[in-house]
Amino acid sequence: MGTFKDFDAPVFKDLTSAVRALAMDAVQKANSGHPGMPMGMAEIAEVLWIHHLRHNPGNPGWVDRDRFVLSNGHGSMLIYALLHLTGYDLPMEELKKFRQFHSKTPGHPEYGYTPGVETTTGPLGQGITNAVGMALAEKVLAAEFNRPGYNIVDHHTYVFLGDGCLMEGISHEACSLAGTLGLGKLICFYDDNGISIDGHVEGWFTDDTPKRFESYGWHVVPNVNGHDPVAIEAAIEAAKQVNNKPSMICCKTVIGLGSPNMADTHSVHGAALGDAEIAATRPHIGWHHPPFEIPQDVYSAWDARAKGQKLETEWNQKLAEYAEKYPAEAAEFDRRMAGELPANWSSHVEDVINQVNAKAESIASRKASQNSIEALAPILPELIGGSADLAGSNLTLWSGSKGVGNNGGGNYVYYGVREFGMSAMMNGLSLHGGLIPYGATFLMFSEYARNALRMAALMKIRNIFVFTHDSIGLGEDGPTHQPVEQTATLRYIPNMDVWRPCDTVESTVSWVRAIERKDGPSALIFSRQNLPFQKRDAASIKLIEKGGYILAESSNGKPQVVLIATGSEVGLAMNAQKVLADEGIHARVVSMPCTNVFDRQEPSYKDNVLPRGVKRIAIEAGVTDFWRKYVGLDGAVVGIDTFGESAPADVLFKHFGFTVENVVKTVKGIL
Amino acid sequence: MGTFKDFDAPVFKDLTSAVRALAMDAVQKANSGHPGMPMGMAEIAEVLWIHHLRHNPGNPGWVDRDRFVLSNGHGSMLIYALLHLTGYDLPMEELKKFRQFHSKTPGHPEYGYTPGVETTTGPLGQGITNAVGMALAEKVLAAEFNRPGYNIVDHHTYVFLGDGCLMEGISHEACSLAGTLGLGKLICFYDDNGISIDGHVEGWFTDDTPKRFESYGWHVVPNVNGHDPVAIEAAIEAAKQVNNKPSMICCKTVIGLGSPNMADTHSVHGAALGDAEIAATRPHIGWHHPPFEIPQDVYSAWDARAKGQKLETEWNQKLAEYAEKYPAEAAEFDRRMAGELPANWSSHVEDVINQVNAKAESIASRKASQNSIEALAPILPELIGGSADLAGSNLTLWSGSKGVGNNGGGNYVYYGVREFGMSAMMNGLSLHGGLIPYGATFLMFSEYARNALRMAALMKIRNIFVFTHDSIGLGEDGPTHQPVEQTATLRYIPNMDVWRPCDTVESTVSWVRAIERKDGPSALIFSRQNLPFQKRDAASIKLIEKGGYILAESSNGKPQVVLIATGSEVGLAMNAQKVLADEGIHARVVSMPCTNVFDRQEPSYKDNVLPRGVKRIAIEAGVTDFWRKYVGLDGAVVGIDTFGESAPADVLFKHFGFTVENVVKTVKGIL
Repeated sequence: MGTFKDFDAPVFKDLTSAVRALAMDAVQKANSGHPGMPMGMAEIAEVLWIHHLRHNPGNPGWVDRDRFVLSNGHGSMLIYALLHLTGYDLPMEELKKFRQFHSKTPGHPEYGYTPGVETTTGPLGQGITNAVGMALAEKVLAAEFNRPGYNIVDHHTYVFLGDGCLMEGISHEACSLAGTLGLGKLICFYDDNGISIDGHVEGWFTDDTPKRFESYGWHVVPNVNGHDPVAIEAAIEAAKQVNNKPSMICCKTVIGLGSPNMADTHSVHGAALGDAEIAATRPHIGWHHPPFEIPQDVYSAWDARAKGQKLETEWNQKLAEYAEKYPAEAAEFDRRMAGELPANWSSHVEDVINQVNAKAESIASRKASQNSIEALAPILPELIGGSADLAGSNLTLWSGSKGVGNNGGGNYVYYGVREFGMSAMMNGLSLHGGLIPYGATFLMFSEYARNALRMAALMKIRNIFVFTHDSIGLGEDGPTHQPVEQTATLRYIPNMDVWRPCDTVESTVSWVRAIERKDGPSALIFSRQNLPFQKRDAASIKLIEKGGYILAESSNGKPQVVLIATGSEVGLAMNAQKVLADEGIHARVVSMPCTNVFDRQEPSYKDNVLPRGVKRIAIEAGVTDFWRKYVGLDGAVVGIDTFGESAPADVLFKHFGFTVENVVKTVKGIL
Repeated sequence: MGTFKDFDAPVFKDLTSAVRALAMDAVQKANSGHPGMPMGMAEIAEVLWIHHLRHNPGNPGWVDRDRFVLSNGHGSMLIYALLHLTGYDLPMEELKKFRQFHSKTPGHPEYGYTPGVETTTGPLGQGITNAVGMALAEKVLAAEFNRPGYNIVDHHTYVFLGDGCLMEGISHEACSLAGTLGLGKLICFYDDNGISIDGHVEGWFTDDTPKRFESYGWHVVPNVNGHDPVAIEAAIEAAKQVNNKPSMICCKTVIGLGSPNMADTHSVHGAALGDAEIAATRPHIGWHHPPFEIPQDVYSAWDARAKGQKLETEWNQKLAEYAEKYPAEAAEFDRRMAGELPANWSSHVEDVINQVNAKAESIASRKASQNSIEALAPILPELIGGSADLAGSNLTLWSGSKGVGNNGGGNYVYYGVREFGMSAMMNGLSLHGGLIPYGATFLMFSEYARNALRMAALMKIRNIFVFTHDSIGLGEDGPTHQPVEQTATLRYIPNMDVWRPCDTVESTVSWVRAIERKDGPSALIFSRQNLPFQKRDAASIKLIEKGGYILAESSNGKPQVVLIATGSEVGLAMNAQKVLADEGIHARVVSMPCTNVFDRQEPSYKDNVLPRGVKRIAIEAGVTDFWRKYVGLDGAVVGIDTFGESAPADVLFKHFGFTVENVVKTVKGIL
């Protein structure tokens, strides 16, 4: 144990040795992966999972289970080992297929692939942020549903994280806000092993982490020997005692502990130990079994199924009593946790759309968005809103908004200037269940949050990202704030639905579709400036949900050209259509609020909207290349491929060619 | 002064009143902007700019000037007022055109638009991070060029920042690393006014900021009355005394101070005060002049031209003496600060490319990238490298790399797991002058840094972003780490050149072009896996710099189809060409390492590479829609529009259709 510097060596025990062996053997078999973290956090995992974690391996979906998040997701073999050993449906065959095609044990923990994995982690800092969202969900739902004697929502959120997570900026955003919100049931374990990929961290990471977290208002347990079960147990007990602050347990650990020659080096971080070192490790940790063999007594000691079933049964009994006393609340709770919309949803939506259509308002689509929230939220208490310090600009507050504070309930989060933190917290809110999050910033600053949006899409979770101030129409704030390429690049995220509605009716439909979509996130993109209302018949209104549709057919029904437009440019296309008609050119206007949804329609529908052989022009205040997929090489695009400028919006639209004259000229140029 | 709570009111003085008046009047005239911050920071600005800032308004390009960064860039009227008053070439006419089209006073400070603006700010948190980069540049250059008695590089970097910057995650990344690096000449002023856009911050921002910065190892001056010149002066003096730590001066201020009815409210943050309140403010601050009129005595008090010229003259004299004693160093210093490449650059580059071509290695392009650095860096001491904790994976170290520590010089920054911080620091390194930064992470995590890349493009600065592990070819780490849409979305950033080379020669050329490019950043995208070397004649090698070129003509010289490919898919296209030829189909292979550069070529060149009327197929392990701009609607794309999977790379390439068979089938499908 020459490398074990800071404290006494642990007496290696079979339970932790099983974890170490599975980690090193699976990584070795795959010849790829990260053995160091699982070997370094084995004792922490043992104490938490055996003595504290309230979960039921037989039912990973038990709604009041403790949540466990492996924010340092590269150490995925740790969670796979724990899930396997405690009795989840993750057989040894899957561990042998670690990191292989279509196994349940991908390189990083993937939500939806593996029972018991609560969120997809790997991109550093986002796991802890998801967990902050989960802990917030627990707090909000507890305030809403718990009744005296019936704490039906009452669980912890536990997080493992490492140096990498703590260096990432998002950890600041999430942990600062977690302190402000007083999330007392969030308990984190910092794997302070002093090593990151580039080596010993003292050259690039010298934070006083306990002090940092105290500055956020956290309860900090410093200097815990992460290999001493007694010390770990005491720290967890201390953390559980503090109910008004999140806890950070700082565990001094040795990366790769158990490996006699490679522990405490970065060689053990992200590569297999090699056969020789594995052979040396086995006797060193007192583990004399072949790879992927676990003796029955070790299995028995880890097995959490009976205990978990008992916990869930007790909870089910409590819920049954609650249901007797509070039948409406219990029914609502069941609906919410199942992620079902209320029974009157469809009829309510129909009424709302009809009313919006009848009002025929020409307002900014951000205002139309707010009106949509105002109309839909009263029957949808699971909506939990927010903005990254732009509530008054994003228009995300509605009359029923109540700020989430550190005293419990509410349905609106003042996220502060924390776009990435907000978005990844929203992922956590959604993953927890019982809530549908929406959160907003300027479209430009979707860039600060971009990887969290991608993670929502990858996890196929319902999440509504609201982005306002969507183009040069933002005006005087200038190019730093004026989106050009953002809408197009969001559309390229697989499984993201990006809506850019042109008026009040499309705005409402985009909200409805985002709420109804259960298998992925939506980005709703709204204007700062007023947009003209477009008249439609009932059939056309129904077609909005197809993502693209004929808004205005050419007067003779035989278009020579199709004008495709989105958002603020639909009104321009409509005006251009009129001028073209005066000049004898028959143009159809297609509004395409959501290209992603349109692309999923049947070919016959798409061919009907965009008939083959008819030339096309796309009009959007964004990069032109995106539209070549619709207009081809013989069509044209009226767009903008440079940065914007600081000036009033009308000056800019004219300068950049978003005028009827230019559209008409462009049409003539291709005909 | 009912709103002035925490300390005694200042005695409003003409110098600060001039700033307040210019800010409120210009915002009022534009009816757009942020008067609150300039009015709240007027005293801090006065003390710093009049008593400390070493600058020469007559020569904003003086290389040893102090740098001043307005990280809370929305308060742009503050810097415009200061630049105008101290004598920069920013006449009153420009202040009257605040936020108007093509004025020198855009909504946010824009580098290159306004003399004296050191960096474009507005996207919060990035200004302070640029400043960390600038302070690092100063430290590194001082270590390289200063000689006993001749501190020719010796200046401070001053930053104004607000609550927004401190909430953003990037402030954690940059300030944590600034502490580790001991950047003692970085002095920041925190405008602690307790207000952000959503209102009083206590609901969402409760950090103990002094404690937070102490945890980073900063020198903190807490509780400074930001309206008391004596207190501010003392704090700056204290900060200047501490040479081994950056300083954070925490100034309690009142936003919008001077406005009798709106100070200390968020109404004054981002909107004009209105005529009535402006009328009330004038007597309140003792300012009785019409809008945009400054009395001569106030101008005289602010005027920094004579003092600045004296400072620069003294420095020029010192530099002249230095040049006599150290002529080689002085010549090198001049070259470096002018941003010129060394005289032997072109011949050296030619030799390097010839050697790489002669070696004909089939290696990973990330390795080819490292070889390029190794070959070019010895004659380019201005190259300052780094990686966000992935040096061994990104292959960014070369034999001459020397880590930048807190003791001075070096040419390699261990940025830690801080992608956004790294990228915005690189912007600062570049803006300072004298250095060409390169920094790396996995391509996926370009997303964490995305807005800093955009800012580099917007500012038109030379900066080299290295992104490795560029596709599903990354293998087992899985979809969280496998880029799909990232290359395409980077290409959409205006003024960004994105290179995805296919072999060693293209990799070297991409490095050369990135280094030679003076008016914008480049993203260099490299593979994890080995790529086959492609044979080319000298003429073809020369054509690589055009971004796209004919790599292999069809055997008969009359192609029926053009296969366009990039990076790892060029080898696949070459293999497909052979099989197609066997089946009697004549295909041309076009390698297109940089679509952005190709798009800038003459139409005749582009038509020659991609002849009209010949069908095209694009092959790239990324989203397909991007390629429609080249293949049109009658071409085809072999790409990937879903997330990847965790498995070995060869399994994935086969699964996702990157096989000769599939390319051949696709070609047949469109012919």
